[in-house]
Amino acid sequence: MRAVVMRDHQLIVDTIPDPDPGPGEALVRTLACGICGSDLHALKFTEEFVAASEASTGLFNFDTGRDVVMGHEMCVEVIAYGPDTEGRVPVGERAAAMPGLMHDGRFHTVGYSNAYPGAFAEQLLISANMLVPIPDSLSSEHAAMTEPMAVGLHAARAGKLEEGEAAIVYGCGPVGLATIASLKLEGGPTVIAGDFSPKRRELAASLGADVVVDPREQPLGEAYGAVGGSTPAVLFDCVGVPGMIDQLMVEAPARSRIVVAGLCMQSDTIRPTIAITKEINLQFVLGWTTREFVDSAEALGDGRLDVSALVTGRVGLEEVADAFKTLANPEAHAKIVVVPEG
Amino acid sequence: MRAVVMRDHQLIVDTIPDPDPGPGEALVRTLACGICGSDLHALKFTEEFVAASEASTGLFNFDTGRDVVMGHEMCVEVIAYGPDTEGRVPVGERAAAMPGLMHDGRFHTVGYSNAYPGAFAEQLLISANMLVPIPDSLSSEHAAMTEPMAVGLHAARAGKLEEGEAAIVYGCGPVGLATIASLKLEGGPTVIAGDFSPKRRELAASLGADVVVDPREQPLGEAYGAVGGSTPAVLFDCVGVPGMIDQLMVEAPARSRIVVAGLCMQSDTIRPTIAITKEINLQFVLGWTTREFVDSAEALGDGRLDVSALVTGRVGLEEVADAFKTLANPEAHAKIVVVPEG
Repeated sequence: MRAVVMRDHQLIVDTIPDPDPGPGEALVRTLACGICGSDLHALKFTEEFVAASEASTGLFNFDTGRDVVMGHEMCVEVIAYGPDTEGRVPVGERAAAMPGLMHDGRFHTVGYSNAYPGAFAEQLLISANMLVPIPDSLSSEHAAMTEPMAVGLHAARAGKLEEGEAAIVYGCGPVGLATIASLKLEGGPTVIAGDFSPKRRELAASLGADVVVDPREQPLGEAYGAVGGSTPAVLFDCVGVPGMIDQLMVEAPARSRIVVAGLCMQSDTIRPTIAITKEINLQFVLGWTTREFVDSAEALGDGRLDVSALVTGRVGLEEVADAFKTLANPEAHAKIVVVPEG
Repeated sequence: MRAVVMRDHQLIVDTIPDPDPGPGEALVRTLACGICGSDLHALKFTEEFVAASEASTGLFNFDTGRDVVMGHEMCVEVIAYGPDTEGRVPVGERAAAMPGLMHDGRFHTVGYSNAYPGAFAEQLLISANMLVPIPDSLSSEHAAMTEPMAVGLHAARAGKLEEGEAAIVYGCGPVGLATIASLKLEGGPTVIAGDFSPKRRELAASLGADVVVDPREQPLGEAYGAVGGSTPAVLFDCVGVPGMIDQLMVEAPARSRIVVAGLCMQSDTIRPTIAITKEINLQFVLGWTTREFVDSAEALGDGRLDVSALVTGRVGLEEVADAFKTLANPEAHAKIVVVPEG
């Protein structure tokens, strides 16, 4: 079958072996799979990406000298089940899939692994119990947003916002936009958001941000003050470049909480004295829980989450390499979805 | 009156004006005042210390070109009250004093200010409502430990330890030792502690640490594993030098919380990828609340907190400059107390 293979910092369409479902596994067809910012990071900073994994949880360890098929934001159709499966989603029906495989009693990531190819491919294997059914009313492209929206939901919940607390979202790329939508879904605090890109500011407003600013014209901390904010707030770093954490600590009111959701691949510099004198709390977050993934699928399914503005492009496998380049320009696209048989 | 004046990175005994209590203020005599690690920082890194304050809460802003009298860990005797005071601690009696003054409706720090001299002096002014009475059974030198023990209590409580969670304390200087004692006071989790200094490891054990290691022989993360620890823990950075936060993030089990109580004056480098893949929480802390200060005084007063091992030296005003130098050697002393009339 055909797949987009990451090989030596390049994306190449190649033929890889057809997958064969083992015990507990489902063989699924990719209907749609979003391109994630982490995929862009992993392509550009492959060695750093793996080194960071090796220094921590080991979830994203792979041999950088061997092929990897990325793709973990997927809507799939079930083709067949291996032995020892319950088949909760009937063959021929669609599901949002958590990108994981249990093997030898261990959880393995699908999409950042030499052994377990992701969904930038015609087919793949997924643990049968990681399929979440979706209603007919939800398009495959929007269902593929279950995973990135779950990332936003995870960040939003990590903020533990209490009544009256405001949220300040730095960066309106896919993670920032998913966070804004999730904050509004979860309880609707006042959301102040900022991004350099006019296109992304427009998307932030359409996903529910109350105040949207260009940080070059007004720092977000000031924008918070301008709407009367002075109490501790919950700030979300959805940018993930060096210097952001320190900048947020400078702009944050004392005793604020900062949720770091942006994946900064490089070393970063902070001034602990600023954090200490303000008693800042930094919560680093990654991914989502099963509960959040299911909640995200349900909110998309019943229309409480509307991601139609977020999905701005659709490409076939042959166009994935170009789409990665296109995504470097925030004006062009927010989320591009890969449709292998499109 | 005589006071130890910080002037151009030197400590000089000089005569300064006798203080005169205004409304809401008490005139007090210093019976004992501990030398704090922050005092050592402020003397050595005066400009950085003030710059950090200016970039954050402004609590420790002062003009570095003018005199400052430090000293904020104090036991005092009330000499007189100014107008509009309740006199909760009778004249002639002793108290632990929170180092603060309300003036023009604002809180001012005593001890890091040009306007409000601290307790490395014969006398000083304190807001009358910041005096906490102490029992006769508690010596003045031990009562002076109310403030540093409150710092440890604040750090310990910020860790929000739940049943079964272990605490790992990096650094057994005064902040680390106060944290260990407070953790044991608060609920008694298993405490693993580490310090390069044999003397300080000995103190850590005497204050209640269950496992004490030399980090050169065994990293604390490994020591935690060696006692069966694998679940998220609460780590305390009580060192405050560049590189510590990153080191703790590397050694911490996934989903651990790190309480940063050590005051690192320099910029610091972290690898966010490690924190993100482990979903680390960093809580920066400073000082204490009134509740914690009072709780600390009570625990010292009724003997639940025993700091006799902690106070290792006593000096007069003339010897303070030398004591600052002596404290650079962790083998020589833990806490030196200044007794102006000793």
